[in-house]
Amino acid sequence: MTRGFLQELVNILFGYISKTSQRSTKVLDFHHPHQLKEGLEGFSLDLSDQPETLEQILVDCRDTLKYGVSTGHPRFFNQLSSGLDVIGVAGEWLTSTANTNMFTYEVSPVFILMEEVLLRKMQSIVGWSDEEGDGLFCPGGTISNLYSILVARYHFYPEVKTKGMGALPRLALFTSEHSHYSVKKSAAVLGLGSENVVVVKCDERGKMIPGELEISIITAQKKGLVPFYVNATAGTTVYGAFDPLCAIADICDKHTLWMHVDAAWGGGLMMSDRHRMKLGGIERAWSVTWNPHKMMGVPLQCSAILVRKRGLLQKCNELGAEYLFQRDKHYEVSYDTGDKSIQCGRHVDVFKFWLMWKAKVNKCLENAEYLYDQLQRRADFQLVFGHKVAPRIKGRMMEKGSVLIGYQPLGTRVNFFRCVFSNPATQQEDIDFLLDEISCLGHDL
Amino acid sequence: MTRGFLQELVNILFGYISKTSQRSTKVLDFHHPHQLKEGLEGFSLDLSDQPETLEQILVDCRDTLKYGVSTGHPRFFNQLSSGLDVIGVAGEWLTSTANTNMFTYEVSPVFILMEEVLLRKMQSIVGWSDEEGDGLFCPGGTISNLYSILVARYHFYPEVKTKGMGALPRLALFTSEHSHYSVKKSAAVLGLGSENVVVVKCDERGKMIPGELEISIITAQKKGLVPFYVNATAGTTVYGAFDPLCAIADICDKHTLWMHVDAAWGGGLMMSDRHRMKLGGIERAWSVTWNPHKMMGVPLQCSAILVRKRGLLQKCNELGAEYLFQRDKHYEVSYDTGDKSIQCGRHVDVFKFWLMWKAKVNKCLENAEYLYDQLQRRADFQLVFGHKVAPRIKGRMMEKGSVLIGYQPLGTRVNFFRCVFSNPATQQEDIDFLLDEISCLGHDL
Repeated sequence: MTRGFLQELVNILFGYISKTSQRSTKVLDFHHPHQLKEGLEGFSLDLSDQPETLEQILVDCRDTLKYGVSTGHPRFFNQLSSGLDVIGVAGEWLTSTANTNMFTYEVSPVFILMEEVLLRKMQSIVGWSDEEGDGLFCPGGTISNLYSILVARYHFYPEVKTKGMGALPRLALFTSEHSHYSVKKSAAVLGLGSENVVVVKCDERGKMIPGELEISIITAQKKGLVPFYVNATAGTTVYGAFDPLCAIADICDKHTLWMHVDAAWGGGLMMSDRHRMKLGGIERAWSVTWNPHKMMGVPLQCSAILVRKRGLLQKCNELGAEYLFQRDKHYEVSYDTGDKSIQCGRHVDVFKFWLMWKAKVNKCLENAEYLYDQLQRRADFQLVFGHKVAPRIKGRMMEKGSVLIGYQPLGTRVNFFRCVFSNPATQQEDIDFLLDEISCLGHDL
Repeated sequence: MTRGFLQELVNILFGYISKTSQRSTKVLDFHHPHQLKEGLEGFSLDLSDQPETLEQILVDCRDTLKYGVSTGHPRFFNQLSSGLDVIGVAGEWLTSTANTNMFTYEVSPVFILMEEVLLRKMQSIVGWSDEEGDGLFCPGGTISNLYSILVARYHFYPEVKTKGMGALPRLALFTSEHSHYSVKKSAAVLGLGSENVVVVKCDERGKMIPGELEISIITAQKKGLVPFYVNATAGTTVYGAFDPLCAIADICDKHTLWMHVDAAWGGGLMMSDRHRMKLGGIERAWSVTWNPHKMMGVPLQCSAILVRKRGLLQKCNELGAEYLFQRDKHYEVSYDTGDKSIQCGRHVDVFKFWLMWKAKVNKCLENAEYLYDQLQRRADFQLVFGHKVAPRIKGRMMEKGSVLIGYQPLGTRVNFFRCVFSNPATQQEDIDFLLDEISCLGHDL
């Protein structure tokens, strides 16, 4: 039964994979929530008390894919993560079959060592020395950024772990107005307070202005706050801008502040000899977020937090639970890395990335270069509308299922479309199609 | 190429699945970290600059499984999560092929609705009314517990989100000495401080003593702390004990404290008419952690945080990023649930669970009953050793690869083996084998 059932499922997945790359198929077959909830053509989300047959389970699987979104479709521009990499998918299938957990070497010997190998590789690409560098794969870039703040706070105020924020002065964090919202979210979660995140002005291209950072630091100090952390962004969410890392590092040095670089999106460019200059100065950061599930096309999720000072993650987070992290094991327990984490159980996110690297380290590099070139070529591509136009075009787009792209307002600009080039399946004709489609769907608005 | 390569991979996975259930195979083929790092029989973890052929990639996949741990083997007793459920595995394979993200209805229409369906089901099993109940699937039980504290703090002190802990009094949390370390870890992360977690005494069976809880609350108040949160455990990590929920709920009511129930391990018993009395009073909790990846055998990870008061998760965590959570979309945006989360990108953990429920709701129930009966029958099964004996037996066990079980000290007891019954593949003969093996491997110690 096992093999026959799984083979049937695999055949369905093969059909999906081959279809998702065809431009003639829809990106999505949109239905409103109430329509899907009512049940479409026999596809019911409800859980009954009667078990279903395996045949019906396979029908459910087919329907689940049918009413989902083809994130690997060449005309899916909606998110920073997209595409459907076959080696990556193979990696995830194996990972879920192995069904183990990253807490200890004991239950994940191979994956724990692969994590070490890949983190070291990433640290050396960032430019840290062999004596420096530590890290973890995390459930998403926001959690990676949260780690950076957590570790920075512990570095300056180790007593926070036991005594809490009550024992500390009022701390201030700095990040640009174009940076990701995860800095504010993490400040709220960690008990620092979102108001204590100071938002620094950007230039017209979305890069943090170093002079404004320095002014913000001094102003905060005058108000009685204690600055401790600066987040610089390498590849902002909307403009794809790179903050000037060297100038920011100088300011951090001068004021003894923790410098974090959120390279969740732009990190992939470090793989390219031609483009890594965009991230010049990143080696001066004290921590770095880098999401291979974005520019490098690794399936979701794969996000690293890299910390320069070795041992800090462990000290910050360890509690030494005696049912997991016994010190008297018969092997070298420094490989029981789970206590570095704020999680206990941790999903294996590394294997798909390791496998993709093995298969095509050079291809990743080419992809990154290609994507960045696309980005540059299209830097002037911007469609700004009255505030109601973009949502209406997007609505029509979703109903039609022809293409998927995000929109948003920013600063003084009302709604505009944000075109993400990260999908390896996308070609020139898809960009042309997108422009035509927006013009066609919006002609009467 | 795609289909041929993936089919080869699938054949390897079929071989693994069929082998993992055979008692004649090893639970693990143990090697020390330095041995695996040096490379075994051509299996190299290192990343070279040359891409590998697809044939070599398949060899790597085979080796990865070979040197890993068979968590689905009938003699794997090491962790609370184990087993290899075929429907669950199918669910994960589909999830990774769909490769999408839980932030919005827009990119995950089906999975977002499935999450709602399952969370509602779980809330109704907990015993909350139709007007109550909210929740999320989280990356592991520790993060679920972290959410409970985060939301409790926000409930009593909403200003913490913007102003941080500096604006609050010194808060105290309460949990039993047998509870999971995640309460302390979360207190450290959230800026509450691990010292402000008051550890409450248990009786000899590992259950929190309600009288001790009340004394602890009053003592903390006298010291100037402000109690706000009590964690009760339904199924402790080591003894599998159930705290007396009704008595704890009475105390929480009296002192207006947030009552959380960590049912990560024991939650599955609520599915059983015969055993759910163990969790009597859970319906009075303000939040509940329940990990279907433990007693219910769902593949890793699948952990829910359930919150009784609807809307609180959203208010506590929302930041309304305009590139994701636009309010002017053409569909009902209350289904864009991503802003409830402390993550931004979130892995799809619900589909495998939904599929397993569809396939065998009754079977899950039988499993839970069977497992609990096993647990009861073996309640007196305890092997306590001098502090060096268990680690040495375990070392021999790992080298031999015959069986895998955890050990630890607790309180006045030195190292003892912790036998977890959660693997559906385990039968009576495997328990007998375990006892014989421990006796045999330890005969000369």
